[in-house]
Amino acid sequence: MYRSAKELRSAARRGELTSHTSGLAPGFVQANLVILPRDWAYDFLLFAQRNPKPCPILEVGEEGSPVTVETAHEADIRTDVPLYRVYEAGELIDEPRDIGRLWRRDFVFFLLGCSFTFETALKDAGLALRHQEEKVTVPMYRTSIPCRPAGRFRSSPLVVSMRPYPPRDAIKAVEITREFPAVHGSPVHLGDPQAIGIGDLGIPDWGNAVRIRPGEVPVFWACGVTPQLAALASKPPIMITHAPGHMFVGDRRGHEYRL
Amino acid sequence: MYRSAKELRSAARRGELTSHTSGLAPGFVQANLVILPRDWAYDFLLFAQRNPKPCPILEVGEEGSPVTVETAHEADIRTDVPLYRVYEAGELIDEPRDIGRLWRRDFVFFLLGCSFTFETALKDAGLALRHQEEKVTVPMYRTSIPCRPAGRFRSSPLVVSMRPYPPRDAIKAVEITREFPAVHGSPVHLGDPQAIGIGDLGIPDWGNAVRIRPGEVPVFWACGVTPQLAALASKPPIMITHAPGHMFVGDRRGHEYRL
Repeated sequence: MYRSAKELRSAARRGELTSHTSGLAPGFVQANLVILPRDWAYDFLLFAQRNPKPCPILEVGEEGSPVTVETAHEADIRTDVPLYRVYEAGELIDEPRDIGRLWRRDFVFFLLGCSFTFETALKDAGLALRHQEEKVTVPMYRTSIPCRPAGRFRSSPLVVSMRPYPPRDAIKAVEITREFPAVHGSPVHLGDPQAIGIGDLGIPDWGNAVRIRPGEVPVFWACGVTPQLAALASKPPIMITHAPGHMFVGDRRGHEYRL
Repeated sequence: MYRSAKELRSAARRGELTSHTSGLAPGFVQANLVILPRDWAYDFLLFAQRNPKPCPILEVGEEGSPVTVETAHEADIRTDVPLYRVYEAGELIDEPRDIGRLWRRDFVFFLLGCSFTFETALKDAGLALRHQEEKVTVPMYRTSIPCRPAGRFRSSPLVVSMRPYPPRDAIKAVEITREFPAVHGSPVHLGDPQAIGIGDLGIPDWGNAVRIRPGEVPVFWACGVTPQLAALASKPPIMITHAPGHMFVGDRRGHEYRL
C-alpha cells in the first residue's frame, strides 16, 4: 500500500515495485500505457475513438515528451510504471522495468482508462473484489468480439477483465461502473463465458484465475490490454505498453472520472 | 419537417433545403462537420480528445472517402449538408451548397455531436426550445473560456449555444443533457453571461438572438462551432465545415446516444 500515487511511482522508478498495482494506491486513477511512433499515432487515436470501451483515452503526450500533464503532475512515463512490454513488429521481445534507453524523439504516449479506477467505487459500495481477496492479478480473457479497425490497426479481439458477483451485486456493479465511461464504463457481458468466446474461465489469457462461488455470475468489462492484441495483429515496428496488471498510477482521484 | 433523415439529406442534395436543421427531422441525430487534409487530421483528432465537450466525435471517415458508415448509411458528406463553409488559411472564402468540386483524395471528414440531438429529449420532458418557438437558429456565442491546444491547433475560445429556462427547467435540462455526453453533455455554464466573457446576449456571434423572459436563466452548452474558431486561429491551408445551424443529419436516433 502506498499513501500516494507519487510514492508508488517513485518506488517503481527505483525498481522497488514490480508487482501488479490493483489496490496499491487506493483512490488514485490507474491507466493503461501505449507508446507508439508519431507515424502510427493517428491510426491508434482513431482505433481508440472507434473502440471507446476498451480504449478510453485519458491523456495523449506531445510528440517526443515522456512527461505527463493531466493524469499526473510531471510523471516520467519511461520509469514510473512497474513493468513494461516491448513489441517489435507484433512480437513481444522484452519485459523491462524501465524504458529510458528505448525512448525516441518521435514517440507519443497514450494513457487509457483502467478498470482498477472504478474498483474503489465498487468497494465503497460494499462489493467485494475477488482478485484482491486472493491477492492475484485480475483475470483477463481474449473474446470473440471484434474491435473496429482503424487505418493500419486491423480488427482484433476485444479483451475483457472478469469479476464474479452474486446477481444482486452484479446489477449494482453495472449501475456503478456505468458512471465511469472514462475507465471502461459498464460491463460488455455477464453470464455465459462461451457466448463471447471464452472457453474456460479457469485459464485466463492474462492475470490469474479466481474462484467463482456457487450462485455467482461472471461479469466482464472491456480491458485496456485490448490494444496490445491489436498490436500483435497490426505489427507496428515498435510499440511499448505496460505489462498486464502493472499500471501507470496518476495523481488524479478515481472519483474525478465519475460522470 | 421531414419524415426521415434520408429524406432531409436528399432535399439538401438536390439543393432544395438550405435552411438551418433544428427540429427538421425530429428524433434523428444531428452532427457538426469538419473536413481537413490527412496531414492535419491527427492534430484535430487530438484537439477533439482534449476538448470533448465542444468536440464529441461521432464518426471519422477513411482518408479520401466522403461516405458515412456509422452515423448514416452511405450518406455523401459532399452534398448532404444544407450549407457549407470553406476556410483557406483561416479565412472564410465561400459558403456553397455543395462541395463536390472541392473534394480531395487526402480529405478526412469528422462528424461531431450537436446539441440539436438532445433537443428532442428536452422537448419530450416538456422543456420548451425558445429558438424553435421563434423559428430562428439557436444563438451561439464566443466565450472567454479557452480550449486546450493540440499540435497546430492553437488555443482558441470555446463557443456555446444558449437556451433560456426558468430555474426549475434549467435544473431538469442539466439532468437530461448529462445523459448525452456524445452530443456535448451537460451545460458548461448557467446564469451571468459576463462570467464567461459574453457581453450582450442580444448580439450572438452566430445564429439569432432569442427572447429571455423575466425570471429565466440563460443556460450555455458547448457548441460544435468551436472547431471553426480553432481553424481561424490555426489556419490550416483548407478546412470545410457545415454553416452554423445547418447540420449533417444522420440515420441514427438521438436516443441511441443516451448513456
